Amino acid sequence: MNIQQGHISKEYNDELEQLRLQVLSMGGLVEEHFKGATDSLLKGEIVKAQNISKNDFKVNAMEVEIDEGCSNVIARRQPAAIDLRNVFAVIKIVTDLERIGDESQKIAKFASELKINIKTTKFYTGLKKLAKNAINMLSSALNCYARLDVDKATKVVQMDSTLDNEFADLNLLLTNCLIEDKKNIEDILKVMWCARSIERVGDHAKNICQYVVYVAHGNDVRHGNSE
Amino acid sequence: MNIQQGHISKEYNDELEQLRLQVLSMGGLVEEHFKGATDSLLKGEIVKAQNISKNDFKVNAMEVEIDEGCSNVIARRQPAAIDLRNVFAVIKIVTDLERIGDESQKIAKFASELKINIKTTKFYTGLKKLAKNAINMLSSALNCYARLDVDKATKVVQMDSTLDNEFADLNLLLTNCLIEDKKNIEDILKVMWCARSIERVGDHAKNICQYVVYVAHGNDVRHGNSE
Repeated sequence: MNIQQGHISKEYNDELEQLRLQVLSMGGLVEEHFKGATDSLLKGEIVKAQNISKNDFKVNAMEVEIDEGCSNVIARRQPAAIDLRNVFAVIKIVTDLERIGDESQKIAKFASELKINIKTTKFYTGLKKLAKNAINMLSSALNCYARLDVDKATKVVQMDSTLDNEFADLNLLLTNCLIEDKKNIEDILKVMWCARSIERVGDHAKNICQYVVYVAHGNDVRHGNSE
Repeated sequence: MNIQQGHISKEYNDELEQLRLQVLSMGGLVEEHFKGATDSLLKGEIVKAQNISKNDFKVNAMEVEIDEGCSNVIARRQPAAIDLRNVFAVIKIVTDLERIGDESQKIAKFASELKINIKTTKFYTGLKKLAKNAINMLSSALNCYARLDVDKATKVVQMDSTLDNEFADLNLLLTNCLIEDKKNIEDILKVMWCARSIERVGDHAKNICQYVVYVAHGNDVRHGNSE
């Protein structure tokens, strides 16, 4: 499906395409921040963590700019049907992307404060797996949006319950570590907050995919509603 | 300022007013859930906790319904200027309200699992204060939206840094409790998650107030942007 179909005005087409490209560009930046944040957590790459905090303003500025673009298109073009759904999805998706930016910043902050050698901990493998799967979900969600791929989007939505289970297992393990390892309570708590943020990124990726389904089919599949 | 000014079509006025009333109604329900959740946490009112989990679907259904209403108004009315800003704000605000509903559900769940007598803990006073201030922020944010009260909205936005500081203090206290009280680690962790959720509600209340400023003045004050 191509959002450029069916318009008489080339200028209008260009405006919609511009919005779409802006979302993908914001998505790319946010993806980079999230990967960088998990790298700084898992590999101790502190420079990456510092860059994320320094550059979060770019994510915020993109959110404001894209929202403004949506307002302009609505005011001047009176979008209907799939065009309106596209603009509506953009308005919602940028909120999710901005929050992924926030979660990345939180992870980066905690990662740069950690004193433990995370690679030698009992929870390293679980944390790495959680991060890998959340990165995969986010990356897939952005691909689904780029290609309006509904089948893939539906699969990504389903992946979220696996991520939730992985997070629950990891949280249990971290709680046991807290009980056993009294010396590193503060660090383990920071890892818990990071794990929580990673799990939240999965939720936002799921939201993005639900908007992809909405754009293509017009039905709102949020909150388990398949009608 | 009154959103009913300046339209020729009474029907269009009614549609915009209807959206506004729906947001206030969803806000009222979410406020009730959040108050109930903090009551169940602080007073052990488990029945309230159960009701919140049972009724979260209503919050979700309202979000979907209001979004649909916004789509219809955009498609049929081509809103401009303050009307468009109103619709835009509705689309954003319902997302914040839905997430407050989610946070309330999380608090209620943890509250119903607690084994400790929270009133006898060292962190009870701090937790109670945090909850009281977050409830106050949410309630004020909804009043600001109802009356389009920009002055008050600006004050509520400023209140968020106080709430953040209170959360940081409480978190420090809870961390110390974790170190001292090894018997109740799981419960203290649950209270930490609840405190985090309460602090997040403050963030959402702040977002709502920033949209109130945007509706009234047309400038986007998110992310500390005062232009």
